[in-house]
Amino acid sequence: MQDTDSIVELMSGEQERIAGEFEQIDGEARFTAKPWTRDGLGGGVAMVLCDGKVFERAGVVRSLIRGERVPDGIAGARPDLAGRPFLATGLSMILHPVNPYAPSFHANFRYFEVGGNRVDWWFGGGADMTPSYGFDEDAVHFHGTLKEVCDRFDPRWYPDWKRRCDEYFHLRHRGEMRGVGGIFFDYLTVEGEAGRRRCASFVEEGLRALVPAYAPIVLRRSTTDYGERERRWQLLRRGRYVEFNLVYDKGTLFGLQTGGNVESIFTSMPPLASWEFDVRPEEGSREADLARFLQPRDWVGECHERSA
Amino acid sequence: MQDTDSIVELMSGEQERIAGEFEQIDGEARFTAKPWTRDGLGGGVAMVLCDGKVFERAGVVRSLIRGERVPDGIAGARPDLAGRPFLATGLSMILHPVNPYAPSFHANFRYFEVGGNRVDWWFGGGADMTPSYGFDEDAVHFHGTLKEVCDRFDPRWYPDWKRRCDEYFHLRHRGEMRGVGGIFFDYLTVEGEAGRRRCASFVEEGLRALVPAYAPIVLRRSTTDYGERERRWQLLRRGRYVEFNLVYDKGTLFGLQTGGNVESIFTSMPPLASWEFDVRPEEGSREADLARFLQPRDWVGECHERSA
Repeated sequence: MQDTDSIVELMSGEQERIAGEFEQIDGEARFTAKPWTRDGLGGGVAMVLCDGKVFERAGVVRSLIRGERVPDGIAGARPDLAGRPFLATGLSMILHPVNPYAPSFHANFRYFEVGGNRVDWWFGGGADMTPSYGFDEDAVHFHGTLKEVCDRFDPRWYPDWKRRCDEYFHLRHRGEMRGVGGIFFDYLTVEGEAGRRRCASFVEEGLRALVPAYAPIVLRRSTTDYGERERRWQLLRRGRYVEFNLVYDKGTLFGLQTGGNVESIFTSMPPLASWEFDVRPEEGSREADLARFLQPRDWVGECHERSA
Repeated sequence: MQDTDSIVELMSGEQERIAGEFEQIDGEARFTAKPWTRDGLGGGVAMVLCDGKVFERAGVVRSLIRGERVPDGIAGARPDLAGRPFLATGLSMILHPVNPYAPSFHANFRYFEVGGNRVDWWFGGGADMTPSYGFDEDAVHFHGTLKEVCDRFDPRWYPDWKRRCDEYFHLRHRGEMRGVGGIFFDYLTVEGEAGRRRCASFVEEGLRALVPAYAPIVLRRSTTDYGERERRWQLLRRGRYVEFNLVYDKGTLFGLQTGGNVESIFTSMPPLASWEFDVRPEEGSREADLARFLQPRDWVGECHERSA
């Protein structure tokens, strides 16, 4: 199908482009690309940058997998799809900066198509940011950029997806949000070929908005002086990141469940993370302030116009 | 019930005793004890030693929780218990040594009692060891010590529980064992009060065998010279430990699900862990040898006499 191919090509082209932009931001380290394939399943390309000036690790990975039967995780939620063949392609990126004042960034856009007597398809995805130290202006810029691209397509999307993102990136066992959120959507589908083209356009523009949403933030925070205290705090917060990925993240668990490429999936993991017993930041400290900062907040002043 | 109390006391007394023995092995750092309670659920005491000479982190934790209804995780496997009140008490320990040549050690013994019209009860537990570098004689000593205590009670237990341990401590997504195994058992129950006393005796003797099983190993490996290469490998292997705990470990997931004390549950986490992209140890290296070492093996020469 022509349009399926063009979606697959979009993911591939954007991987190259986005990795190139992050390389420029880093200014020192380069991405290396590693393809993987798995018989009867598909393959992908993991692009990874390590030990840069700005990024301790950056991963931009894409995959294209096919199967005879939709995976259990999806068939459980959508019994009408059970037993049907599927195609899934996606582009994900996770960036863990060196500087503890610079937030981690994660985004994923994916397309899922289920064949058989008829074709069902949808897009999913999102983008979110995880600071170790909170800065209001960073969250405002990040959310504002994402809202702007969503609003071009449907003004109900941002408020709805912002709320879903706050709900999703939540560590239930700690009663903590993972970060300042962003947007999160799934099962985005609009009737007909024109609908699919429109959704694909949104994904294309969404992918183009990611670097503008994140780059100014990581650049301005990467020049801040820091010491052991901030590094220790960053490693502890990265422990939370690991907890989220392994306990709750649907993409990670879907990948592990479907026999995806472990190395590619785990480019999401931070290079180094720590756990200490019962750490309680000093009252009034910047570290203690993060708990206050990581609450669902209306960063761009329009979430009260909430969708249905 | 008299015997329930004595089991609770056993866990408490053994926590103090075992922590004391590990303190002696470390020779420098001390445990600090931190009690926790949660309204309507119960409580526990987490004993933690940090940044010692031998142990980078040691945690010995016990808990005693009660609830009106057995948790979903157990009711799912045992529908006859659903909706009934329960009591659970357990003692766990995880030790992450400083020296990369010294293996991590984990053990847990627990007692579960379900009330209502009748009382159901069982013990569960196990002990296992996770080296970053393989030494046959360590695995032989560890397994031999555990087998000896099992054999005092039932010669079928060790071969059966050794096999279950190999099956349980398995990272499916990597096709890797977590370590060299040990023993793992659950739903151990024997009819009548005499049966319960016998099981409690086994748990008591099992707890007393833990330090003899592990101490000689951690002591002899802690004097080996090592450098950055071994430290890097240790941190990567600890990443695998984190993966197991958060993706597969029933105790961890049970704790998080029942609203257990997160800090106490996560004393199991290593102090520092890393993930690198697509690490492949050089052929013939000690690091590459670990993959060969971490296969289910008959360490004490009697597993062919397997139980039914």
